Amino acid sequence: MPHINLPEEYPGIRSLFVYRPETAAPLCQLAQVLLHDPHPTLSAGERELIASYVSNLNTCKFCTATHSAIAKHQLGSNLALVKQVLADPESAPISNKLRALLNIAAKVQTGGKQVQPEDIERAREQGATDIEVHDTVLIAAAFCMYNRYVDGLATWQPDNEAFYDKMGEQRAREGYKPSSINFTLTQELQKS
Amino acid sequence: MPHINLPEEYPGIRSLFVYRPETAAPLCQLAQVLLHDPHPTLSAGERELIASYVSNLNTCKFCTATHSAIAKHQLGSNLALVKQVLADPESAPISNKLRALLNIAAKVQTGGKQVQPEDIERAREQGATDIEVHDTVLIAAAFCMYNRYVDGLATWQPDNEAFYDKMGEQRAREGYKPSSINFTLTQELQKS
Repeated sequence: MPHINLPEEYPGIRSLFVYRPETAAPLCQLAQVLLHDPHPTLSAGERELIASYVSNLNTCKFCTATHSAIAKHQLGSNLALVKQVLADPESAPISNKLRALLNIAAKVQTGGKQVQPEDIERAREQGATDIEVHDTVLIAAAFCMYNRYVDGLATWQPDNEAFYDKMGEQRAREGYKPSSINFTLTQELQKS
Repeated sequence: MPHINLPEEYPGIRSLFVYRPETAAPLCQLAQVLLHDPHPTLSAGERELIASYVSNLNTCKFCTATHSAIAKHQLGSNLALVKQVLADPESAPISNKLRALLNIAAKVQTGGKQVQPEDIERAREQGATDIEVHDTVLIAAAFCMYNRYVDGLATWQPDNEAFYDKMGEQRAREGYKPSSINFTLTQELQKS
């Protein structure tokens, strides 16, 4: 049961967006810029992988399932590949650059000071640019916020993989505009 | 030395705001709503105390010094009181409600799932409302992001207490509008 009185029909962070629209606006805008807007070099799928990887390290079920599904749809892959990346990026079939960026993300998850010059060096050797390093650190840091927000208020997190897949397909298509996030939820969950 | 090439004259998160204005906008807007805009019951000073308390738990020098100075100016108190709260909220001369909210913030800092029903119950017994609990969790979660962002990119963090005090006075007065944050920095640091 959530720690505060949240609208019952909305799962996870969506219940918090409906509860407090004043904070929902910048939280959605940040996700939109980091994950969905065009990026010079990182695809939306790669950025969603970083988000789901960090959410999994933080054991946040809602964010892991949601962003894994979005990553799947953005990459045009299957969920098994995403789960492989989450379980062990070092052996997963991804680029060495993305592997090095996920290593930085894991350091950020444990604490900002854990990122060492050698972590950056490893990413540089694989061709990572400043903005790729910057965005990786900020995506990882932002999911340390979103995950704590969702779990710290004990939001409702459904156990329904089809629901997450449907939501993932929608987010991959529409992005994180608050208008699309707030008004199509109950319908989705009922259909799933 | 920062892990990426940042504008040299800007300290801490400010260098990151100048580097990437697209993410600066929602990051500033979130701080504005959570810490500066009018709140039904929590003063700006109380909210800044939560921000500096979490930043100190995350050992982020720049954010701790900045938000401690803002808290001081918002509360019209002295820095010794703020430092007493950071060192030991249980014995500091603050309200029992704020003490219970800081306990929730400390749980969020270690992980969202660490917040237990008894932590919420303790805050309720001291009169805490839903929105106070919500905003405490989100402020604590947000500073787990800001702190990781600032330290994860190894930004320049001056050792000059007078600088932080001057910046704290400015933020307490002007809030977190990106326009005021971005264009008065070098001048401030040079004067301090």
